[in-house]
Amino acid sequence: MHHRLKQSGLKVRFCTNESQKSVGELVRLLRQLGFDISEGEVTSPAPATCQILKERGLRPYLLIHDSVRSEFDQIDTSNPNCVVIAEAGEGFSYQNVNDAFRVLMKLENPVLISLGNGRYYKETSGLMLDVGAYMKALEYASGVKAEVVGKPSPEFFKSALRAIGVEAHQGPECILVCGAHKLAQTGIAAPGSCTPPGLRTTWPRLATALAYSFLGLYRHRFIVRNHNCCGERLF
Amino acid sequence: MHHRLKQSGLKVRFCTNESQKSVGELVRLLRQLGFDISEGEVTSPAPATCQILKERGLRPYLLIHDSVRSEFDQIDTSNPNCVVIAEAGEGFSYQNVNDAFRVLMKLENPVLISLGNGRYYKETSGLMLDVGAYMKALEYASGVKAEVVGKPSPEFFKSALRAIGVEAHQGPECILVCGAHKLAQTGIAAPGSCTPPGLRTTWPRLATALAYSFLGLYRHRFIVRNHNCCGERLF
Repeated sequence: MHHRLKQSGLKVRFCTNESQKSVGELVRLLRQLGFDISEGEVTSPAPATCQILKERGLRPYLLIHDSVRSEFDQIDTSNPNCVVIAEAGEGFSYQNVNDAFRVLMKLENPVLISLGNGRYYKETSGLMLDVGAYMKALEYASGVKAEVVGKPSPEFFKSALRAIGVEAHQGPECILVCGAHKLAQTGIAAPGSCTPPGLRTTWPRLATALAYSFLGLYRHRFIVRNHNCCGERLF
Repeated sequence: MHHRLKQSGLKVRFCTNESQKSVGELVRLLRQLGFDISEGEVTSPAPATCQILKERGLRPYLLIHDSVRSEFDQIDTSNPNCVVIAEAGEGFSYQNVNDAFRVLMKLENPVLISLGNGRYYKETSGLMLDVGAYMKALEYASGVKAEVVGKPSPEFFKSALRAIGVEAHQGPECILVCGAHKLAQTGIAAPGSCTPPGLRTTWPRLATALAYSFLGLYRHRFIVRNHNCCGERLF
């Protein structure tokens, strides 16, 4: 099915909000599931954030999962002048969240970057709080509005488009394969009792959903213009 | 100073948002600091919440500090049909917050009660996230709006007024001694770099602030009508 997508001649980019796995881990998992995909074809929040940090000279306090810490290897984290928050799971201890809060409160121009704004997702063990919940906690306590890197941020979609050499206004000419949220809305994925927004599924389930999605592809027409993933069937 | 307040003949009620100490502990601490105060003179969120839980037949999942758990001794917590959140400190682990979230998500008519909505407070070790931050996290993730028991909820002030036999419209005839927030706004307390809203100080500091406040008392005129503690000097 992925093969069929590639044969279409359309430009393809994998665009994910996953921030608990490195791009390497993610690609390995998708390859195991039969996807012909390389790291260079993925737009994910951690590398996009690193780019922003470098451009703006920001040194983050990282409230993130240990498994994505390697993505920030090239980033100076000494004497933090911003906070980066991602899906940290058990890393969302009171101590860690409080430490992030204190960093924000001591800054004259506080910056809070959140890798996505999902509400929750589903694991085999049940529903799990996503990064958006802790983003809201920090926003409320510190009075700082977070900058979201990831879907549905238009900047994130734009960076995915740029990666395949397409300008935003050329959106209809390309395909961005999005995650489970859109698939769930369209009824392709069957994520149990979960409801959008912010829905995520387990990776095996998402991979299945993606596989199904290739049978009924979506063309993302207005991605950048209206911030929504307005899907339109191609086949 | 407290003596002078009592001599004024005005009805006095101590009204606190403290939800990390039991009323007993709080009163012991204030007595040690020289305040002539009994448990019966305090309105605090935990007993007010117990009253609500009983009235509405609610069985809470308690996301609270261990030191106030005894306040809920008489409450049935089996098979929860609501969540009660208070200042839990280290109790705000990912696991605990997620468990509270799951309770909300499985309920047909979810109820989230928050003992206050403070943003942060100050301990000797530094700024600490207050219950309001986690209330916002749960609100965002679950889509459930919290009911706040504590200041600035008008119901909370009304219950304090009722406790001294005063109707809400008689507000100007009574005194409610409020916490550090108002004192900080008026410049009586000097909480360092903290700024309202949501400010709290350590208890010794609050006690000092309260002591100072008795030198320049505040009459809370419009407590219930406009939800604000509009202070007016009596002496």
